[in-house]
Amino acid sequence: MELEAVRKYLEKGGGEDDKNASIINGLPLRFFESFTMQGLRVDLIEPGRLICSFKVPQRLLNAGNFLHGGATATLVDLVGSAVIYTVGPPITGVSVEINVSYLDAAYVDEEIEIEARTLRVGKVIGVVSVEFRKKKTGKIIAQGRHTKYLPVASKM
Amino acid sequence: MELEAVRKYLEKGGGEDDKNASIINGLPLRFFESFTMQGLRVDLIEPGRLICSFKVPQRLLNAGNFLHGGATATLVDLVGSAVIYTVGPPITGVSVEINVSYLDAAYVDEEIEIEARTLRVGKVIGVVSVEFRKKKTGKIIAQGRHTKYLPVASKM
Repeated sequence: MELEAVRKYLEKGGGEDDKNASIINGLPLRFFESFTMQGLRVDLIEPGRLICSFKVPQRLLNAGNFLHGGATATLVDLVGSAVIYTVGPPITGVSVEINVSYLDAAYVDEEIEIEARTLRVGKVIGVVSVEFRKKKTGKIIAQGRHTKYLPVASKM
Repeated sequence: MELEAVRKYLEKGGGEDDKNASIINGLPLRFFESFTMQGLRVDLIEPGRLICSFKVPQRLLNAGNFLHGGATATLVDLVGSAVIYTVGPPITGVSVEINVSYLDAAYVDEEIEIEARTLRVGKVIGVVSVEFRKKKTGKIIAQGRHTKYLPVASKM
């Protein structure tokens, strides 16, 4: 690809029209979280374990028309943080490390299941695993791991 | 934290008002990319290397009022994909693995620099590194790595 085309791709925000710019500039403070999570439903919640349902929305698609890898990583962050909440700490702290393996695509309106489990929530460090599956077949879409530093528990 | 509070946090999309829901439902198809990238500027572009500037916008903040970890991961995906474009393949393929280490916070209106480098772009696999730094001090905010499968080059 030509360098100028790459520059245009990045500076135009994914090659969309400028009309998006005016929408974006009018959006509320900290919109990113609610923008990504909107539509998430909690099916099971217990200490250390969380199962959510999510119907892949149009707004979170990538250019290939399946769930954007960045949105998946954001859900690892958000649902992974929430499962740490279920075992106690009032503040989940700050992310240290997130990784995601992408195994399959999730298309628009597809029902997916997101399961988060705490692997360890100690005094200073919380580690969780987050798995994305197709609801119909159980096939794994992505698997992530999220490590957080927990400043409250460590009396910082 | 009580389980009901965690459920409410997840289902309310980060605890924001329902007013966000009506905004979100009206957003265009594939809004996620332009929403995240809007405002990115390319300072240097050459084959295999890309340096961008980005002023942390209000919309991408987390509850702690610094750049959301999910937004950082999304930028690893997007800028990391773009740097693969600079060395040839017309399609960047699909993400296989993304990881991010979070090292420092970037606050609203802070100028950050995002540098992406290709580590390898072979026939089938592309691997890139993406580093986020404070523009003023050069201090590293985050470092990510992104692995992509390149179906076009592999004649799939």
